[in-house]
Amino acid sequence: MQKVAVILSGCGVFDGSEIHEAVLCMLHLTKQGASYQCFAPDKPQGQVINHLNSEPEQSSRNTLIEAARIARGDIKPLTELNAEDFDALLLPGGFGVAKTLSDFATQGADATVDEQVLAACKAFASARKPAGYCCIAPVLIPRVYPAGVKGTIGTEADVAAAFSAMGGEHIGCVVTDVVEDARYQVISTPAYMLAENIAEADIGIGKLVKRLLEM
Amino acid sequence: MQKVAVILSGCGVFDGSEIHEAVLCMLHLTKQGASYQCFAPDKPQGQVINHLNSEPEQSSRNTLIEAARIARGDIKPLTELNAEDFDALLLPGGFGVAKTLSDFATQGADATVDEQVLAACKAFASARKPAGYCCIAPVLIPRVYPAGVKGTIGTEADVAAAFSAMGGEHIGCVVTDVVEDARYQVISTPAYMLAENIAEADIGIGKLVKRLLEM
Repeated sequence: MQKVAVILSGCGVFDGSEIHEAVLCMLHLTKQGASYQCFAPDKPQGQVINHLNSEPEQSSRNTLIEAARIARGDIKPLTELNAEDFDALLLPGGFGVAKTLSDFATQGADATVDEQVLAACKAFASARKPAGYCCIAPVLIPRVYPAGVKGTIGTEADVAAAFSAMGGEHIGCVVTDVVEDARYQVISTPAYMLAENIAEADIGIGKLVKRLLEM
Repeated sequence: MQKVAVILSGCGVFDGSEIHEAVLCMLHLTKQGASYQCFAPDKPQGQVINHLNSEPEQSSRNTLIEAARIARGDIKPLTELNAEDFDALLLPGGFGVAKTLSDFATQGADATVDEQVLAACKAFASARKPAGYCCIAPVLIPRVYPAGVKGTIGTEADVAAAFSAMGGEHIGCVVTDVVEDARYQVISTPAYMLAENIAEADIGIGKLVKRLLEM
């Protein structure tokens, strides 16, 4: 049975992992016969957003503790992720990727990736183990792989331009499809960057997981 | 297109809606051609649990605001749920059902259901519109329907006994199946009361949604 490490960034589309995407990743991994272990950084979220009115809240929440909600408590701090123990890596989207795993939400193409996250992603890249990035998570790809690496965030012009400015080659992609860079074993799908409902996100994520496990 | 009202109870298995179940409900509704609208009570959660260590936290969280995370912000207060506007009702599980939608977690067979929740569920029952209850949510069924109503929480003896003590007829059920009481158009499935992984919960919930839309 293939083992996949899943990196989460909290619990909620506006300040953490996009919940539907994270659950669909777990669903497709399990249905396709793989096991998974969730990880998240043990640090405060970059922001806490009231998901009812979209306003920032003053309170602080810990990324690992909130991500544990999606993982039903079965989650480990990112420091314990050893790429040697896994066959592949998978990152759902959500603003947590741009606010906590990196500062892309405020810095755009000048974004810095959290050190632990970067080390974990680079460990899979160096070992030539496949990695899948959903939704907004592909903005990390140009920081992990050599210049010219291919990836997609769908069709949103500003984010695509940032992806290119960071050194990647952005490939436009529909929600039901994936973009693969076979040289680096990295694959991405737009998910809720484009999805108008959960069934659309489901198709792209299902395809991404299938290819991830085939690689 | 059939419209289904989904009642959530927060965001997280130990103090709110079970996230996987809620997302699987939305996925199957959408894949099977129905639309849905999420609702939740606008009141404090009965408890807030740290999902990493399972310990209670002293802070307070609002049920509607937290449930908005699963609903990607598209959620309404339960007071706005009018059964006339929908074809069916669906309740995912999670301890929020037993701690916020009712006090079953502490009162067992003597449980009282939140007034708004009870009114909403009874409105669907009175209108003879189908309703689906997942996981622990079926403990509400004996409070909504007449004595002798059939339902399942799987095979857990204490909860099954409480279901019967509350006036229901408990029917043992495997995770991949559903129990239906055609007299009252109510259907239930064990989901994570029994599921050992998300793919198992997916099968039972998929079947429940299919029957719900057929009824």
